[in-house]
Amino acid sequence: MMAGALNGIRVLDFTHALGGPFCTLLLRDLGAEIIKVEKPGSGDIARGRAPQTKANESGTFIMLNRGKKSITLNLKTNKGIDICKNLIQKADVLVENFSTGTMEKLGLSSQEMCKLNPGLIYASLSSFGHTGPYRMEAGYDPIAQAMGGLTTLTGYPDRPPVKAGPPIADLGTGVFVALAIVSALRHKANTGEGQVIDISMQDAIWLFTAIEFASNYFIEGVIPKRYGNAVPHTTPSDLYTAKDGFVIIATLEVSQVKSLFRAIGREDLINSPFCTEQKDRLKYRDQLDPLIENWTKTKNMQEIVEVLKKNDVPCTLVPSYDMVCNDPQLLSREMIIEVEQPLSGKVKTPGSPFKLSKTPGNVNFPAPRLGESNHEIYSEMLGYSEQDILQLEKDRVI
Amino acid sequence: MMAGALNGIRVLDFTHALGGPFCTLLLRDLGAEIIKVEKPGSGDIARGRAPQTKANESGTFIMLNRGKKSITLNLKTNKGIDICKNLIQKADVLVENFSTGTMEKLGLSSQEMCKLNPGLIYASLSSFGHTGPYRMEAGYDPIAQAMGGLTTLTGYPDRPPVKAGPPIADLGTGVFVALAIVSALRHKANTGEGQVIDISMQDAIWLFTAIEFASNYFIEGVIPKRYGNAVPHTTPSDLYTAKDGFVIIATLEVSQVKSLFRAIGREDLINSPFCTEQKDRLKYRDQLDPLIENWTKTKNMQEIVEVLKKNDVPCTLVPSYDMVCNDPQLLSREMIIEVEQPLSGKVKTPGSPFKLSKTPGNVNFPAPRLGESNHEIYSEMLGYSEQDILQLEKDRVI
Repeated sequence: MMAGALNGIRVLDFTHALGGPFCTLLLRDLGAEIIKVEKPGSGDIARGRAPQTKANESGTFIMLNRGKKSITLNLKTNKGIDICKNLIQKADVLVENFSTGTMEKLGLSSQEMCKLNPGLIYASLSSFGHTGPYRMEAGYDPIAQAMGGLTTLTGYPDRPPVKAGPPIADLGTGVFVALAIVSALRHKANTGEGQVIDISMQDAIWLFTAIEFASNYFIEGVIPKRYGNAVPHTTPSDLYTAKDGFVIIATLEVSQVKSLFRAIGREDLINSPFCTEQKDRLKYRDQLDPLIENWTKTKNMQEIVEVLKKNDVPCTLVPSYDMVCNDPQLLSREMIIEVEQPLSGKVKTPGSPFKLSKTPGNVNFPAPRLGESNHEIYSEMLGYSEQDILQLEKDRVI
Repeated sequence: MMAGALNGIRVLDFTHALGGPFCTLLLRDLGAEIIKVEKPGSGDIARGRAPQTKANESGTFIMLNRGKKSITLNLKTNKGIDICKNLIQKADVLVENFSTGTMEKLGLSSQEMCKLNPGLIYASLSSFGHTGPYRMEAGYDPIAQAMGGLTTLTGYPDRPPVKAGPPIADLGTGVFVALAIVSALRHKANTGEGQVIDISMQDAIWLFTAIEFASNYFIEGVIPKRYGNAVPHTTPSDLYTAKDGFVIIATLEVSQVKSLFRAIGREDLINSPFCTEQKDRLKYRDQLDPLIENWTKTKNMQEIVEVLKKNDVPCTLVPSYDMVCNDPQLLSREMIIEVEQPLSGKVKTPGSPFKLSKTPGNVNFPAPRLGESNHEIYSEMLGYSEQDILQLEKDRVI
């Protein structure tokens, strides 16, 4: 096995469901040890999510938790909190995505835990962050997508706004938290000093939307509309109907627009105002799109893509999700792999996006059964005897 | 000014437009020095993007490049490539997002540059990655969104698929690249060794979609449909029509569903099968949603949100984009700030999402004029005289 960039880093993971576990999945891919702390009995709520394998393991849970260690710990008992503090003293990083205020109520506030372990990096992922007027409001992905501005900007202008299909607020924010943690690890390596990280889903979504859209409002005072599949700053770039589905054609440079006209047999337009720089041809969007669709709708997707690619026009058919799940490029890049779950057998999951030549993402591990690492952690790391551990189980502490 | 986590790291930035510059923006927020290498005369294509300030600076460009140093360098001259290699020897990180093969053609391949500087972290962001059958295909954000499966999963089932409004493939992938780079910096700090990073937009989008949707196909053989604003694994959770707009209501726990019924005056349903665990109540989605909408459509958004929040039901009105641009929470978290551009004056931009207690994201810097740091870099870092620099300008090398 190759080295991981984060080898030797121990993360105590109090997260559940999506965004937090995605953050620690990325840290795991990069080589960190993840100790997932779960509620005795039921564990992470994502364990119950459909669809499930025949052995009743959740597909989403497996994808999010491969290679992590699971321990159970009841944070609502004094003994549980004592054990928790022992663990925190042995960790480099703590990650949590409870609603704001929960860790404080448990007696595990960032302030106290960073006193207990001054090198600790204490990272929180929440809907609105731990400061500001909305800090105590309940969130969830669709709410953060709306509050960061993504929903009002997605969909067709003549239909209600729509969120991105995947939970991009949960998952996108998870990547920001991972980046903040690894950056804080560098500060710690240089100074010995830990710190507190407070990342918000609304902030992350706002950042994604602002780059493309906020200047319209800030500079021109214009409220941007929903563009469907069009791209605000260039044309032709949209989704077009084919006989058997949809294609996307995306031009940026003038040369690509000219190639497109050549490909669809409209050489007559190559010297027209349609083939001018982005800013200048933008005003012809409503004339350009029907002209292209008149051509695409008489042809099959494959035929369109073949002709356009031969002419170096960026395009794709819109693959259905089963096509994506069998995509040759994703397969070739090991982005669709199988992990061997002891209970469920082989389960397909996405691979690691981290194609690093010396420390590649390392992914061939199953997701843990609930409490699978209790003995390893409680006996080897904390020094409890077998008898102690049995007693803790009996007392429902673990 | 507080320390940045990446202080002392020098990044040579060959990126343009969105995804690459977003990656180096995040590294800048975290404290790295970014030397942005631009084409003499025109620079980064994003400099031309609308909307522009009265002084002809692009809003998007300012947002993506605040705090970076700009130098000009003509990579199509031998002298330019010589200078480039000198710069690379003095850098910790190189980032590029040209189409696959371009750096090789310029004589700046990862293999050769890592020989020149064995500690170099050489990171590429591209549409499909640098390996696999699609590696040479032209990409762009809407194509990557489709090829990673996001487009077919977004929108309403009775309308064509639609991409996420913001360029989530460009920007989301930029965060992965930044995370890979900072992780590789840790490996470098431990071993002295640089490495090559190859991150793909399609891989990143696939990862975002797979977590929620791929198990339907992999485990059950079902091709997931478009859910509009609904959430596959829970209900009620959707967008509902109000008298004056739309609201989103998002329940996960049974207690929240009960509170919702209480709030809308349907206590009679609290002991019905509608108030069972997620998996069990899912089959009632089509009955639940109209029941809720019958209530919301008789009320204004504000009124709905007020009643539901009082009952601890997670919800929000769907803010229009001007509301988001003035959101009190984003303002309170300094996610909407002003930078002072020497030419344009004060320009609003998003702040840094990195709320780190010891090394916070540091953002109060203008974006550079084209070639603004030529003298600093070419004279102080490479030792050219004023006369040399004038000659380089005359020869159109810089």
